[in-house]
Amino acid sequence: MAVDRHVPPSVLKLQPYQAGKTVEQIGREIGVEVTVKLSSNENPLGSSPAALRALAAPQDYAPHLYPDAAAVALRAAIAKKLNLEPEQVICGNGSNDILEMAATLTLRPGSKAVYAQHSFVVYRLATFARGAEAIEVPAANFGHDLDAMAEACQQDGVRIVYVANPNNPTGSWHEPEAVAAFVAKIPEDVLVVLDEAYHEYVEDGPGPTLALLAKHPNLLISRTFSKIHGLAGLRIGYGLAQPGLLALLNRVRQPFNANSAAQAAAAAALADDDFIARSKDANRAGMTQLQEGLAAKGYPTIPSCGNFICFASGDGAAMFMTLLRGGVVIRNIDEYGLANWLRATVGTEENNAQLLAALPART
Amino acid sequence: MAVDRHVPPSVLKLQPYQAGKTVEQIGREIGVEVTVKLSSNENPLGSSPAALRALAAPQDYAPHLYPDAAAVALRAAIAKKLNLEPEQVICGNGSNDILEMAATLTLRPGSKAVYAQHSFVVYRLATFARGAEAIEVPAANFGHDLDAMAEACQQDGVRIVYVANPNNPTGSWHEPEAVAAFVAKIPEDVLVVLDEAYHEYVEDGPGPTLALLAKHPNLLISRTFSKIHGLAGLRIGYGLAQPGLLALLNRVRQPFNANSAAQAAAAAALADDDFIARSKDANRAGMTQLQEGLAAKGYPTIPSCGNFICFASGDGAAMFMTLLRGGVVIRNIDEYGLANWLRATVGTEENNAQLLAALPART
Repeated sequence: MAVDRHVPPSVLKLQPYQAGKTVEQIGREIGVEVTVKLSSNENPLGSSPAALRALAAPQDYAPHLYPDAAAVALRAAIAKKLNLEPEQVICGNGSNDILEMAATLTLRPGSKAVYAQHSFVVYRLATFARGAEAIEVPAANFGHDLDAMAEACQQDGVRIVYVANPNNPTGSWHEPEAVAAFVAKIPEDVLVVLDEAYHEYVEDGPGPTLALLAKHPNLLISRTFSKIHGLAGLRIGYGLAQPGLLALLNRVRQPFNANSAAQAAAAAALADDDFIARSKDANRAGMTQLQEGLAAKGYPTIPSCGNFICFASGDGAAMFMTLLRGGVVIRNIDEYGLANWLRATVGTEENNAQLLAALPART
Repeated sequence: MAVDRHVPPSVLKLQPYQAGKTVEQIGREIGVEVTVKLSSNENPLGSSPAALRALAAPQDYAPHLYPDAAAVALRAAIAKKLNLEPEQVICGNGSNDILEMAATLTLRPGSKAVYAQHSFVVYRLATFARGAEAIEVPAANFGHDLDAMAEACQQDGVRIVYVANPNNPTGSWHEPEAVAAFVAKIPEDVLVVLDEAYHEYVEDGPGPTLALLAKHPNLLISRTFSKIHGLAGLRIGYGLAQPGLLALLNRVRQPFNANSAAQAAAAAALADDDFIARSKDANRAGMTQLQEGLAAKGYPTIPSCGNFICFASGDGAAMFMTLLRGGVVIRNIDEYGLANWLRATVGTEENNAQLLAALPART
């Protein structure tokens, strides 16, 4: 094939994202019945019941019509909940789409992205897919070394920096004051993407980092309905920034990026405070259960502010297979440079117990 | 704002895609009750009933779980229906996503895209969003001048050519033999994107252009569930190519680009032969109704193979407002360089009649 002749080497080298395999695939492959899947940080309580009711009534979102390209109703609902203006909100096909739009806007061959070691793999994929270079800043105690990242952003050619807070897969989190100090150090022509996919598990209320938006025209905060709202399958997320930055992002946004089923379900989920509270409570209880259970079996863990936890598994690939043979699937995080760790999503009490039961005591 | 300092001029100049305004927006703006909306080439029969049943059962597609990133079931169903292999199919967030992935793979500052005057506006948007240059080849009788386009593809720096067949908004169509001759003339390192969003309104069966896939490793055919299947709101389309080309596209594809509600609905719609046949019949009847009605009122039309028709309206913006005051919305195609034409979607018999009734006789 000759088309690849002009494709940047970084694209050709790229390993497509390895999604957590479906339960069905894995079961088929080794002839085991998988009963517990804690590999993709999905909500163990399912979806917001209000969202499910919205989805079950397709006549209300008219699937034969194009979606509202501007997502007017959903953006207004998000803005109201967060005390922002609708002009400060952009919707995406998952928050992944927000991360990708930011890359399309800023990156091309010759430009550079900064992100942290062990941080969300999509930053690397989005960078390499545009033929740009990456500066991966070594982690500090499994978290972002914000000082070193700010320093890296002073280099020529840096156009964007991605910060995950909390970070996936490690669960590390930086206090809002540290984030504010970091953003203040970034050159004004570098786009700062603050990925807050898991922020609801840490904070109450709209989140203190929102106050930074007024001060920093180069700040983009991304969030998702995939986690605490339980809508990962529908692909809906959003970005928050000053209107000037969003006007740029809208130029590279696919016109109908957010589907109408997702817009309807997300608006319903956003107002479902009961489900949000229950999800948070369940995560708190399940996190304690896993932390205590892992400690009891002798596994060190990384303190996590998300809905998942990493533990020192020894050879991660081998332990992954041990658990799989017990019908339990969690996430191998070899591709994150964490070959001796595994990441488990906080599940239901029963699923957490099944994971712990399948785990041999550490020798 | 300083982020725009490094954004290519072509992005800054770009006008974001103007979607057909929603009925609600337009009504609000001028205080008219809009009763007929024939502006977005949506299916007047609604969605496939089989797809609606799939959507109404969210428990079956589990919205709290991530979608199948590889869309295994849907790709297998598409491949089976078209007598292809699943490895020749890639799914997108609408076929728009396929068009964008092709641009991401091939275009950056310094490279060039070729497309036709009056052809689908997303080709231009996708090109400029990557900071690349466009060669817009003048149309021939409102259709693509395929010879001139093939000639343009010989220029240095051309990496991709988009051909819409049928074309939106003009409805022009080229016979498969002409398409085959065109593809054979394109240099092997130029990606040929054949956009067949409207092909079901022309052809019976899988479509003769599929036979070209075996011969041309640089050919990508894109199709959609937004039109004859009535699923525009859900955002699901697909690309067809040799596995080698799809392996490249998968490197720039967003991992969970196709949502699970759409995957479920599309698989159901694909098997709903009755709805497809009814939609095609309704389009044929409605097209005749509009052609005859427009002729009776003295409006020249462009022969169309899609589910829409363009007529010579005189000042398109003025006529758009005249119709709007009569409660009818169609599409102003000024941005396509067709300021003296309007495009009407073929609607139900009743809606077509309402459009014709609202249209003054041509003086």
